[in-house]
Amino acid sequence: MDLKAVILNCTLKKSPAVSNTEALIDKVVDLMAPLGVESEIVRVVDFNVPFGVESDLGNGDQWPLIYAKLKAADIVIIGTPIWFGVRSAVAQLVIERLDGSYDDGDPVTGQFPLYGKVAGVIVTGNEDGAHDAAGTTLFNLTHLGCVVPPNADTYWVGDAGPGPSYIEAGGDKHLYTNKTARYLAHNVTWMARLLKANPIPTNLNALIAEAKQVSR
Amino acid sequence: MDLKAVILNCTLKKSPAVSNTEALIDKVVDLMAPLGVESEIVRVVDFNVPFGVESDLGNGDQWPLIYAKLKAADIVIIGTPIWFGVRSAVAQLVIERLDGSYDDGDPVTGQFPLYGKVAGVIVTGNEDGAHDAAGTTLFNLTHLGCVVPPNADTYWVGDAGPGPSYIEAGGDKHLYTNKTARYLAHNVTWMARLLKANPIPTNLNALIAEAKQVSR
Amino acid sequence: MDLKAVILNCTLKKSPAVSNTEALIDKVVDLMAPLGVESEIVRVVDFNVPFGVESDLGNGDQWPLIYAKLKAADIVIIGTPIWFGVRSAVAQLVIERLDGSYDDGDPVTGQFPLYGKVAGVIVTGNEDGAHDAAGTTLFNLTHLGCVVPPNADTYWVGDAGPGPSYIEAGGDKHLYTNKTARYLAHNVTWMARLLKANPIPTNLNALIAEAKQVSR
Amino acid sequence: MDLKAVILNCTLKKSPAVSNTEALIDKVVDLMAPLGVESEIVRVVDFNVPFGVESDLGNGDQWPLIYAKLKAADIVIIGTPIWFGVRSAVAQLVIERLDGSYDDGDPVTGQFPLYGKVAGVIVTGNEDGAHDAAGTTLFNLTHLGCVVPPNADTYWVGDAGPGPSYIEAGGDKHLYTNKTARYLAHNVTWMARLLKANPIPTNLNALIAEAKQVSR
Repeated sequence: MDLKAVILNCTLKKSPAVSNTEALIDKVVDLMAPLGVESEIVRVVDFNVPFGVESDLGNGDQWPLIYAKLKAADIVIIGTPIWFGVRSAVAQLVIERLDGSYDDGDPVTGQFPLYGKVAGVIVTGNEDGAHDAAGTTLFNLTHLGCVVPPNADTYWVGDAGPGPSYIEAGGDKHLYTNKTARYLAHNVTWMARLLKANPIPTNLNALIAEAKQVSR
Repeated sequence: MDLKAVILNCTLKKSPAVSNTEALIDKVVDLMAPLGVESEIVRVVDFNVPFGVESDLGNGDQWPLIYAKLKAADIVIIGTPIWFGVRSAVAQLVIERLDGSYDDGDPVTGQFPLYGKVAGVIVTGNEDGAHDAAGTTLFNLTHLGCVVPPNADTYWVGDAGPGPSYIEAGGDKHLYTNKTARYLAHNVTWMARLLKANPIPTNLNALIAEAKQVSR
Repeated sequence: MDLKAVILNCTLKKSPAVSNTEALIDKVVDLMAPLGVESEIVRVVDFNVPFGVESDLGNGDQWPLIYAKLKAADIVIIGTPIWFGVRSAVAQLVIERLDGSYDDGDPVTGQFPLYGKVAGVIVTGNEDGAHDAAGTTLFNLTHLGCVVPPNADTYWVGDAGPGPSYIEAGGDKHLYTNKTARYLAHNVTWMARLLKANPIPTNLNALIAEAKQVSR
Repeated sequence: MDLKAVILNCTLKKSPAVSNTEALIDKVVDLMAPLGVESEIVRVVDFNVPFGVESDLGNGDQWPLIYAKLKAADIVIIGTPIWFGVRSAVAQLVIERLDGSYDDGDPVTGQFPLYGKVAGVIVTGNEDGAHDAAGTTLFNLTHLGCVVPPNADTYWVGDAGPGPSYIEAGGDKHLYTNKTARYLAHNVTWMARLLKANPIPTNLNALIAEAKQVSR
């Protein structure tokens, strides 16, 4: 187990309520384990995480606990349900809180805390919206410093309109989801190991200085 | 020059009309050159590329010419203007034509032709929509096999509503755009070199076979 | 038949190729007919419509033919397939060409040609992306002047990943799609009749003049 | 004052923190007042509104207070900042809580509580994302029953990258925003008055029954 993954389950439901997204997360965890990845699943709503864009809002804010886990991880995965065609409010909250990480750049390179970590996304919904939820989330994570390997998302959705969710619908037997879960597990793992051995050298501070010379 | 970049300019305007997107593309090209990248810019509308989802539609279809360039590249960058808040119809056309590449997987690994190439995006618009245009495009490219390094997009947009475009507005002096153009150039180049030395080993065919055993 | 609907089928396939989107469009046409709506379906790719943002690009541009139909309609519906999670390149092309209508405002009120028309959207895909395709399109149409009644979209998508399309999958028997097709048909029809009897009185030119007095 | 508007300010900041979104909301309120609209602004984070998809989660849930205001309104406007290119987590939370309204349909017509109300959106951000935030929100509101008139959104964003927000940047002098704020105010007001005099007659229950006869 040379790699550490932190998977944020952005379900709206507190433990111990059953989470469909967690069911698919569990599969990915099981797929990554034999590849050398120790995973920790964090159900964000079980913590006191207020809305905001700073790394620590005080007054019992527990985001710092989650943020510390993310900073210590090699692989960062966001699991989210779909509501109204997009990612959950909890997933959006998580991304907003990570805005604070832009202020925590390395003094020398300027790299943000998530720089060079590998990102993945796991989405479930009873229908439509996985592309938007996954695409938006992965893109945000690249701004925050993450690398996205090919096929870094897996999702399950049913056909048009309301219907049974992942567990009830037997989504665990759905070929496309099982296939992409494997692509995700293998690619994030391989990429994380490659990047651990080859850290991104880009000096953002130097590039900002250079950019300033040609800007007004 | 050990690396090859192909940059598709998805402007709506045929040559020799001035393209704002191309002006920003040119900057990225100039930034990548000293890093060892030989770039080729392809203005898609100068070619006969019909709508479709196959790699060769015949009847004078020139997509195969562009597709061959992409397959020979280490770095694939999509440049697109914003129209109505999203990427241009030409950019969407390009992505749709790449759907055909799913059928051109490697016989052994199943990897699609763009697997392991590094993706980037360059966006200009007189206002709003860069996140959507960039995020959707990068996500699509990861499905097609590309790797997205951190800060793999650069864009320029003006403030709310119609207004001058990149060139007229002096966007070439905009610090944020100049900064992110450098991040993009350095990160895609470094990542492409890393991946060239370390090809992604994932065998998609083997993973599909494994997934079939647990699916119905 | 006191109302006229123009439905643009934005499939990538020219006639006489079978279009899944047209199959769902046909259903909506059949539902609107007894409500007093005469519909015309226009398959955009059967016309020579180049990329651009003007109402007439000359050189055999056939957009003016389609644009004239839209201007004469009470109800404007965009039918689009989903590709890579979003609306088709043809649908994007159509919206881009409508950018030219901003220049064709009424001399007195400034209202654009589509002002007060009622918009609807019909989407098919073998999976995921209907919310994005419908939402983006309806929003664009409100900028262009259209009114969107409740439940102005109907769509069919299958579950996660590639699979059979609307016709082959028997989407015509899918309750959610059949239900929302009826909502769409009834609401666009009722709203179009209401607006025909009560044209939107807003004078955009007067409001611009007023806004200028408080802007710099 | 024959019309009532409820405007939800979905800023992340609790009162009395200054909200840029509220500054633009205030302008719209002032524009609607002389047109006969009495507005109430609700800053959602000042209430205890947990994540969820039901209309009343108990345990001190204050969503029912806000929900009651929305149900009593003629005009429903969502004000939201942009974070990471999309609407705020609070705006997403609001939409998710409205999912519960699908269960509160009229016994006879099946119309949801927001049916026939008029929707608008107000967005501020220091850059990019207004189209996505506005388009997604208006589309969701049409599913919930709202009508969207033309130009039902106003927004202010600065140019690419971080920068001053609406108040600091003098966004109150920005012509495009001032113009579209007026379009919004006039169109939602006129439409609300029209719909109050002409309620949408669609019987969703009857249409579901009809749809069931042709579905499996």
